[in-house]
Amino acid sequence: MNYSIIKILPLFLGGFLFSQQNSDSIQFKNISDEMLVNGTAYENLRDLTQNIGHRLSGSAAYEKSVDWAVLKLREAGADKVWKEEVMVPVWERGKESLQIKEGNGIWKTLRMLSLGNSEGTKGKDLEGEIVFVKNKEEFDQLPDAAIKGKIIFFNYAFNQKFIMTGQAYGDASIYRRATASWAGKRGAKAVLIRSLSSAFDDVPHTGAMRYAEDDTTKIPAVAIGPKSADELEKTLKTQKVFAKLNSNAAMKGEKLSHSVIGEITGKKDKSVIVVGGHLDSWDVGEGAQDDGAGIVQSIEVLRTFKNLGIKNNHTIRVVCFANEENGVKGGKQYAENIKKNNEKHLFAIESDGGGFTPRGISLLMDRTKREQIQSWRTLFLPYGIHNFELEYAGTDIEPMEPLGVPLAGLIPDSQRYFDIHHSEEDTFDKVNRRELLLGAVTMGQLIYMIDKNW
Amino acid sequence: MNYSIIKILPLFLGGFLFSQQNSDSIQFKNISDEMLVNGTAYENLRDLTQNIGHRLSGSAAYEKSVDWAVLKLREAGADKVWKEEVMVPVWERGKESLQIKEGNGIWKTLRMLSLGNSEGTKGKDLEGEIVFVKNKEEFDQLPDAAIKGKIIFFNYAFNQKFIMTGQAYGDASIYRRATASWAGKRGAKAVLIRSLSSAFDDVPHTGAMRYAEDDTTKIPAVAIGPKSADELEKTLKTQKVFAKLNSNAAMKGEKLSHSVIGEITGKKDKSVIVVGGHLDSWDVGEGAQDDGAGIVQSIEVLRTFKNLGIKNNHTIRVVCFANEENGVKGGKQYAENIKKNNEKHLFAIESDGGGFTPRGISLLMDRTKREQIQSWRTLFLPYGIHNFELEYAGTDIEPMEPLGVPLAGLIPDSQRYFDIHHSEEDTFDKVNRRELLLGAVTMGQLIYMIDKNW
Repeated sequence: MNYSIIKILPLFLGGFLFSQQNSDSIQFKNISDEMLVNGTAYENLRDLTQNIGHRLSGSAAYEKSVDWAVLKLREAGADKVWKEEVMVPVWERGKESLQIKEGNGIWKTLRMLSLGNSEGTKGKDLEGEIVFVKNKEEFDQLPDAAIKGKIIFFNYAFNQKFIMTGQAYGDASIYRRATASWAGKRGAKAVLIRSLSSAFDDVPHTGAMRYAEDDTTKIPAVAIGPKSADELEKTLKTQKVFAKLNSNAAMKGEKLSHSVIGEITGKKDKSVIVVGGHLDSWDVGEGAQDDGAGIVQSIEVLRTFKNLGIKNNHTIRVVCFANEENGVKGGKQYAENIKKNNEKHLFAIESDGGGFTPRGISLLMDRTKREQIQSWRTLFLPYGIHNFELEYAGTDIEPMEPLGVPLAGLIPDSQRYFDIHHSEEDTFDKVNRRELLLGAVTMGQLIYMIDKNW
Repeated sequence: MNYSIIKILPLFLGGFLFSQQNSDSIQFKNISDEMLVNGTAYENLRDLTQNIGHRLSGSAAYEKSVDWAVLKLREAGADKVWKEEVMVPVWERGKESLQIKEGNGIWKTLRMLSLGNSEGTKGKDLEGEIVFVKNKEEFDQLPDAAIKGKIIFFNYAFNQKFIMTGQAYGDASIYRRATASWAGKRGAKAVLIRSLSSAFDDVPHTGAMRYAEDDTTKIPAVAIGPKSADELEKTLKTQKVFAKLNSNAAMKGEKLSHSVIGEITGKKDKSVIVVGGHLDSWDVGEGAQDDGAGIVQSIEVLRTFKNLGIKNNHTIRVVCFANEENGVKGGKQYAENIKKNNEKHLFAIESDGGGFTPRGISLLMDRTKREQIQSWRTLFLPYGIHNFELEYAGTDIEPMEPLGVPLAGLIPDSQRYFDIHHSEEDTFDKVNRRELLLGAVTMGQLIYMIDKNW
């Protein structure tokens, strides 16, 4: 691109001048300018990811990130900062490996990750023949004899046809969460799954699985990369393939941990507006997009209200939730506590889709409130925020839904997220400074409107 | 992100079912599905960038890319493929270096790139004292004595406040294009500029400069990275700094080169719909986002029409323009030729903003046609295409504007583009497969509507 782009300049300045005839638009621009010029979210994320890195709840790294969040909330200017106690599961991966061999061939090592919450092989080699199925229908049609003592390989592919990749993730996620119990109950030894990934590389992606209440077998569940999955399927069409799995993954009870909370007190009343993300991450990569981004964006909102001296009527509270990834204990505990303390909550928004360019805001609330927010659309359009139609919020705040708290979620562009999500590739270098800050701009602008109008 | 995203699935399927009640929506989905599942644009871009790399017009690499484009257009199923002759400037960078020293300190090397079209020092060291100005106003206020024999350093920063980064680029670009002649005419020896970059790293960005008609001095113009620029400004506030520039950059006349054209013939008439980008790039990096992306997206549109067996009423023509970066000779020649041959053109669209997630389509045409395209908005919304308000098209197709050809431009998300644009960082790994293909989807869908309705 060379010169032509310059032609749009007058048009845009026109847009800005027009929008500035309106005081809300001026405040929208103040929030945007402050973040894009002086925002600290990107450097905070660099610090979190480079100096602490991944931080599964229950780990020592997670506890470091708790102290980090307390410090950053103080630096951002919070009036009050505290830690909220929550019991979290302790799941440890330990050493793990997967090898396969064709017929009488030699063992070949595959890149793999045990799924989160999965039990392992207690450090012993588990060997068995691999049986391939494309999906649940094919699995259900297999006779028990074909499953008993075998390692079942589910190669259900991420559907590239969806425009928002979250739909493809939703579509495929049952294969990560449920296959171990499907296969275990029918006598299988272990399950291999194709990673829930939008990429075509060989990166394995972990993520939470759950054993069914009535599943006493608790067989190991392991993810391999899309490339290995395609090659394995191809090989299995012409010959037998055996796998050797060795994993020390195990659930090791619970421990006391913390969500981190910081707020600026309301000038008019103490009713609460929550903005948050989850502080924990999976135990690979750096938890940069999932969800370091949501944490630093939420802190950025508080910093900006403080720095611009915006007089917030209601309390604006940043919540850095514990344990989203493998239990949602932080979110559930938070909802319990506000109910117990009968603490009025006006609104909550979560950022947990990555720090990519924001495209919209999803709304989970009654129709009147939803339509009021949708009526603010023209204020958001100059910032590229156009989608107000989706109905979901975020895993950590949805436990507040039964309490009648109006909820929302930031909708970032979704194209790159599932290439790296829950993998070694979710690192700081995948985050763009402006994209990250624009997500904070959107949440700050919405909170400004809600604080003023509700 | 964990489970909550799943909740949006039913809503979305609803959207799809609804949209499919309409035959245009079905064709939109066919185009999208074909590209997202079977698209070759990403692998084509890998081939172009990894096996040819950067390709400044006039270079041997550019001529290789001409043969590559002929081959790829044939593979995509074009009925006719040819090369269109065009004379292009030959500018060569050659060896270059920049050192600075404080007062009586030692020489320190800075990362730098001569600006495109700039003359160098003919391999001799050019030394002089650096004089800093923030912008044109400060430069104009300097007395001639403060400029004569000096090296003028313009440190005009990319304005982070704009939401679409193209505006910041437009705002700053005069400092890349014009400063050499401003300073040369007043007796300066050379100019240093801060790179036109949205990043805060030390990567220098090149790009076209032009000497004024009446500038006989043609002094060298060099870009340094944002970090070096900030450090240099800081140092200059407390002490004198000298620079030593050595550059072999030089304009070396013109040579015969080619744009590459491929088309599928219209079933009803021979009037032409153009989809294109520019095949040339700067002589650093790999020209991946600028504009390898636009080239492979345009070829993808042709491949998809052919593969889906869409009966196009009018001729759909891919034009891979030569020399966008430092002369726009390909675009000017193309417009001259269609005028000379009096070849009817219905419409032209260019992709030259990078292969990022598409956000909209800019429209440069009469009001009736513009409003007709805007009336198709609801067809595009499920694909995230919401912005139909901007008025520009693309550098290579704008020479057709005086001929009355309705023009459009693909509007991709702009946040990451100017971090890497015209630099060593514009490489294949910065391109995401789905983002790239979605840009082709948008152009294919628009061309389908125009072919059917115009």
